[in-house]
Amino acid sequence: MAALNGAATDLKSTFLKVYSVLKSELLHDPAFEFTDDSRQWVERMLDYNVPGGKLNRGLSVVDSYRLLRDRTDLTQDEIFHTCTLGWCIEWLQAYFLVLDDIMDSSHTRRGQPCWFRMPKVGLIAVNDGILLRNHIPRILKGHFREKPYYVDLLDLFNEVEFQTSSGQMIDLITTIEGEIDLSQYTLPLYRRIVQFKTAYYSFYLPVACALLMSGENLDNHVEVKNILIEMGTYFQVQDDYLDCFGDPKVIGKIGTDIEDFKCSWLVVKALERSNEEQKKLLHENYGKADPACVAKVKALYKDLDLQGVFTEYENSSYEKLISSIEAHPSKSVQAVLKSFLGKIYKRQK
Amino acid sequence: MAALNGAATDLKSTFLKVYSVLKSELLHDPAFEFTDDSRQWVERMLDYNVPGGKLNRGLSVVDSYRLLRDRTDLTQDEIFHTCTLGWCIEWLQAYFLVLDDIMDSSHTRRGQPCWFRMPKVGLIAVNDGILLRNHIPRILKGHFREKPYYVDLLDLFNEVEFQTSSGQMIDLITTIEGEIDLSQYTLPLYRRIVQFKTAYYSFYLPVACALLMSGENLDNHVEVKNILIEMGTYFQVQDDYLDCFGDPKVIGKIGTDIEDFKCSWLVVKALERSNEEQKKLLHENYGKADPACVAKVKALYKDLDLQGVFTEYENSSYEKLISSIEAHPSKSVQAVLKSFLGKIYKRQK
Repeated sequence: MAALNGAATDLKSTFLKVYSVLKSELLHDPAFEFTDDSRQWVERMLDYNVPGGKLNRGLSVVDSYRLLRDRTDLTQDEIFHTCTLGWCIEWLQAYFLVLDDIMDSSHTRRGQPCWFRMPKVGLIAVNDGILLRNHIPRILKGHFREKPYYVDLLDLFNEVEFQTSSGQMIDLITTIEGEIDLSQYTLPLYRRIVQFKTAYYSFYLPVACALLMSGENLDNHVEVKNILIEMGTYFQVQDDYLDCFGDPKVIGKIGTDIEDFKCSWLVVKALERSNEEQKKLLHENYGKADPACVAKVKALYKDLDLQGVFTEYENSSYEKLISSIEAHPSKSVQAVLKSFLGKIYKRQK
Repeated sequence: MAALNGAATDLKSTFLKVYSVLKSELLHDPAFEFTDDSRQWVERMLDYNVPGGKLNRGLSVVDSYRLLRDRTDLTQDEIFHTCTLGWCIEWLQAYFLVLDDIMDSSHTRRGQPCWFRMPKVGLIAVNDGILLRNHIPRILKGHFREKPYYVDLLDLFNEVEFQTSSGQMIDLITTIEGEIDLSQYTLPLYRRIVQFKTAYYSFYLPVACALLMSGENLDNHVEVKNILIEMGTYFQVQDDYLDCFGDPKVIGKIGTDIEDFKCSWLVVKALERSNEEQKKLLHENYGKADPACVAKVKALYKDLDLQGVFTEYENSSYEKLISSIEAHPSKSVQAVLKSFLGKIYKRQK
């Protein structure tokens, strides 16, 4: 613990130290009698699935809390607790990803095989996802049980998980095999999926954790929630845009949304702007693995000037977000929201 | 709601009315913006998976609370709240079963195809399991948020779910395909799996819910927990015994534990009591679909007098449980525990 303070200049290494502490606690949780095999299994599963991402969601709890308190010199205890909540979000994310990969029959994740594709794992990964999810209340109980905001923290994680899995449900039933139909891909549906499946847990949850730790009542921060949900939507639109128009060398992967029949912002906008002939082209070529089909879709996106439409969306989104943020009465809350926006505005990856 | 009181003589029909109320609330949960399709999906999924079992776990919350309060005339409000907690346990059970069936590649459940085998469902069932799980905190928040024991209720459900999924993990990793090894099946492992995977949520959880509603602190009831865990173990041993020696006409199915290489109490006891030659026979014939192999295993069970061993176990378990129960200072707690024991002692199905 003493090391946490000294390493405060390097937030990420501090954050990773807290991971080791939390993992070790979970592997010795007195509520379960581990066998040696099961303890090893959980340790391997955690190391494979939890810490390997960019950790943006988790780290942003610490950043947000710092800005809310308007202090750079957090106490050792504050650092540990903000990092712990950050890890709870990373655990939540790991749980979603492990199960999503099974449902989507994905092959790789973060540059390695999906967990369920590993030897001996297979569908045991379903239960591993459940275990990841169950670790969150164990961590919260271990470190926040005596805090006045403990029950609000439980309610918050429960509500956000409910919203995420509900958003995932709409996404899944919209793309049931054999029933996929491009005409379902409309902007209201797109926004609903993105808002619930991604924005709540990626944007709202980290800030909500920091607000609770700062003693705030979340009922008084509905506007903060709305702004973060809007920012999360903007972030996903960028993601969809970069999948097609980003530089694969910069974003680190070759996009396949067109091949995969994804409900991407681009295809939604293309459908909105197409005449009958262009719609026909989309219906005939979207969701096909054939590179010739993909090329036709991309050419149509260019004909419809989706790059211009995106730039316009990006600018107007930014304007709206900034003016909502500046309307907020608290300067420190403004600082949190501007910090989030600054990290994503005009991002190339 | 008025009907709940009138129907108090028929607990099951009251219980089912509460299901309809809870379902309707979930389908109009303001924390999510349902589309028509997604609302229909959830309704169909709930009706298929939640209310179709024997409902013993859920109903036992109501029974236990009645005995704890030593009153048969519960208020309308008490009936509704005990039924609601009972349904939370049924929801938890549905969640486990939907996911277990996927992991076990099962075909049928409660006399109908497993949910994931239904047309259009497939692996969407993974997310449906998650939704079932997420409904529990929604129900609890809706009806218990203002109760003094709300946070204990959340902690209880979280802890029991953690224990159940941890028990399921040991079960799964003990039976990884290609690595199954009969010599792993020992009594300590058997007890550990049964205790965590089944006993906590089936036996302890209903009584713990009733205790919380009665204003009790669960920390003062560790002995009640231990007795219920022991009873849950005894119940599972019966289950394993009946799978092989029960009357298929009475238990309603033909057991296949031998064919399925299950870590059954019978095979554990057989291994304990076998000489080298008999062990060889078990290794060669256990877990094979061939009826001749199954017959050899059953013949060995008879040679080893497992029926006698079981009767002895049943009697000594009963004696121990009764004396633990009678050592409890509270007569009403004794009544709850004796009621559970009475329902399962010497059961034939």
